[in-house]
Amino acid sequence: MGMTIRELVSGDRDAVREALAECRAFNPEEIRVALEMVDAGIEGHYSLPAVEIAGKVRGYACIGKAPLTARTWYVYWICVHPSAQGAGLGRRLQSHLEEFVLKSGGDRVVLETSGRPDYSRTRQFYRRAGFSEVGRIPDFYKPGDDCVVFCKVLDAKRNGSESTDRQSGTSEI
Amino acid sequence: MGMTIRELVSGDRDAVREALAECRAFNPEEIRVALEMVDAGIEGHYSLPAVEIAGKVRGYACIGKAPLTARTWYVYWICVHPSAQGAGLGRRLQSHLEEFVLKSGGDRVVLETSGRPDYSRTRQFYRRAGFSEVGRIPDFYKPGDDCVVFCKVLDAKRNGSESTDRQSGTSEI
Repeated sequence: MGMTIRELVSGDRDAVREALAECRAFNPEEIRVALEMVDAGIEGHYSLPAVEIAGKVRGYACIGKAPLTARTWYVYWICVHPSAQGAGLGRRLQSHLEEFVLKSGGDRVVLETSGRPDYSRTRQFYRRAGFSEVGRIPDFYKPGDDCVVFCKVLDAKRNGSESTDRQSGTSEI
Repeated sequence: MGMTIRELVSGDRDAVREALAECRAFNPEEIRVALEMVDAGIEGHYSLPAVEIAGKVRGYACIGKAPLTARTWYVYWICVHPSAQGAGLGRRLQSHLEEFVLKSGGDRVVLETSGRPDYSRTRQFYRRAGFSEVGRIPDFYKPGDDCVVFCKVLDAKRNGSESTDRQSGTSEI
């Protein structure tokens, strides 16, 4: 499948809104805040790596350096349109943003997600991507809805090899 | 000691800067960000309860509702001038901000602090104030400097009684 990775631009806003609404993970208030952060990102406050398929943005992330840290970055949002889910777009986006963080001098990524049962696939995605659970704030979002904090320490060597096609014979311990 | 609790105003900025610098807990970049958030708070983006002694602000906190949560508030900064430390000003400020959060419809407070050895008194202060450690992000601020996440669930009844002078004979389980 032809995936192009590039930064979001203001012309992508409708496609982003559609992806946020269609993926059914976010309520209207969350979509409003996500779009505010897209606008702030386009103005330069965050980075917005996006995946385009057939000329249309089908997934994006909103990331930024964590203030007052030496080398830590936050992933604020990741969203993939349901029509593109299961095609490895999320992994591609995740892999790309990790390379971006490394190139920008970062060495770890932190994100928060919900502890609700309907987010178990999301948490599983992050665990498979190498994240560890480093915190859980009970009832953070609302009663019964914990905040789960994940962190991944990036490895320049490993992330570099993941960014290219799989190479047989590459020895890694 | 005559302590007055009130919101910070723009005329307090020099006293706040002095407290931030003198308490020696913050580096120049942290002081810059703290003052930016004071400015944003005066514009209405955060609440800034402060303690004034003899006409001068000697401590303040910067707090705000956590976005996308039902009843969670963040404590972003607490700072007490060293000349006023040990006099219960920190406890008074903490108790006041918890009442403020309860009155504003909040029911829990989350804050992040450093895991460094020189912050052990700060962490001890929060534990005594009823906070629990709910997360620890290794090397978050820099190598060897974890982020420790604390949370306190507020109890309207208990916080109400703490806000008045100690009453003997109050039965509480």
